[in-house]
Amino acid sequence: MQKKLILITNDDGIFSPGILALAEELQTIADIIVVAPNKQQSAVGHAITITTAIHKQEVELSNKIKGIAVDGTPADCVKLAVRTILPKKPDLIVSGINHGHNTAVSIMYSGTVSAATEGVILEIPSIAISVTTFEDTDFLPAAVIAKKVSEIVLQKSLPEGMLLNINVPAIPLNEIKGIEITHQGKSVWDDFFEKRLDSEGKEYFWLKGNLNIKDKNIDSDQGAILNNYVSITPIQFDLTDYKRIDLIKEMGFNKIL
Amino acid sequence: MQKKLILITNDDGIFSPGILALAEELQTIADIIVVAPNKQQSAVGHAITITTAIHKQEVELSNKIKGIAVDGTPADCVKLAVRTILPKKPDLIVSGINHGHNTAVSIMYSGTVSAATEGVILEIPSIAISVTTFEDTDFLPAAVIAKKVSEIVLQKSLPEGMLLNINVPAIPLNEIKGIEITHQGKSVWDDFFEKRLDSEGKEYFWLKGNLNIKDKNIDSDQGAILNNYVSITPIQFDLTDYKRIDLIKEMGFNKIL
Repeated sequence: MQKKLILITNDDGIFSPGILALAEELQTIADIIVVAPNKQQSAVGHAITITTAIHKQEVELSNKIKGIAVDGTPADCVKLAVRTILPKKPDLIVSGINHGHNTAVSIMYSGTVSAATEGVILEIPSIAISVTTFEDTDFLPAAVIAKKVSEIVLQKSLPEGMLLNINVPAIPLNEIKGIEITHQGKSVWDDFFEKRLDSEGKEYFWLKGNLNIKDKNIDSDQGAILNNYVSITPIQFDLTDYKRIDLIKEMGFNKIL
Repeated sequence: MQKKLILITNDDGIFSPGILALAEELQTIADIIVVAPNKQQSAVGHAITITTAIHKQEVELSNKIKGIAVDGTPADCVKLAVRTILPKKPDLIVSGINHGHNTAVSIMYSGTVSAATEGVILEIPSIAISVTTFEDTDFLPAAVIAKKVSEIVLQKSLPEGMLLNINVPAIPLNEIKGIEITHQGKSVWDDFFEKRLDSEGKEYFWLKGNLNIKDKNIDSDQGAILNNYVSITPIQFDLTDYKRIDLIKEMGFNKIL
């Protein structure tokens, strides 16, 4: 049987430790190609580059693993890889390992998830994986989880139009209590801007904030992590609020003309 | 009764004609404050600026309308406006008028929609509005629609966690057949990269593409527009694929540890 092909990308940049740990683990089960942003792209959301040109460059992630660095967003990397770089459509796209959780409302801002979203748009089974700490951490437990999930996806694929968003607690593998299939939680950021003055006395602002954790139950992404479970959330992209379409009609919006 | 306050933003930049048409129309029903990116931010998705500082500057959109230009994304503008600029929480956020449709999969890439999304995250009723052409166009019909929708929202608010994504056909108001409350369509971009060589013979790439319209029925966003209706889609942000959670459990992902 022909070896399967996995496209690996991320949003922390191609030289981040998370993508190297992921590549080292996934190369044991498939051919891999790494195509990732040449610099940090966190919180870019599902940005794509339409008003400037994109360049690519071969780089070395380690002695044994090469990759292609792109001066674009995570979604650009997936588009460019699938449309121009890869010899064939990949069997799987894995985005990560992100340094920091991608749960609840953060999914909307996540470059890691957006790369997997772009994969789904291109009809390729896709996974986003994050380790849930911003501190220095060991990426190996998350890499092992990514490999195990990838093995299932390479064998069974994924339902059309769905990606898996995986969050792995930042603890040793033998302390992880299990896997929970979860829903996107309701936690939101309590954010604010720190106002500073530059040398000419002109104001500028830095965004600061903490996630206000509203999800304690293990059936939510943030709750699963809190309880030392891996969270796997099936994500889809029809944002229509079907349950409240009738409500909007009753409010009279369809009668303004 | 105290006058209502509307925050106006966009992703085409504060000096685009669409935001001026919107501001001129909405100032007839409420106090308005315009806070928008200082340059074109199309296709930025739900990006936020977390690794650099943000600056703001007062500018004039016209003789009568002033605004605040921000060197950030649409979502940054909403966050900064609500957290630091506005005297009180706005009663409504209107993002637009975008030059070009925001339908189907394009919603994922849209800076216009992301500004309204940020509004919903901040628990403020929010609307995104676009006119569905990339050619030179008259923004007045869409501005009138925005005003009529805003009047209802200012009176009745919107259900929690929902925004309205409005697309207005680029035709005279009296040729618009009516309003349809729609679902997000399935149309996708047939995109590709044009490869070019720079003066040193090095490759670079430009993204090109056309929307492959798969939605013909007026109950979808793209279908409504095609048939000369205004499309209003209620959008929410829990991306969980609830219908297929059990399927993912059956596939064995929760048994890998």
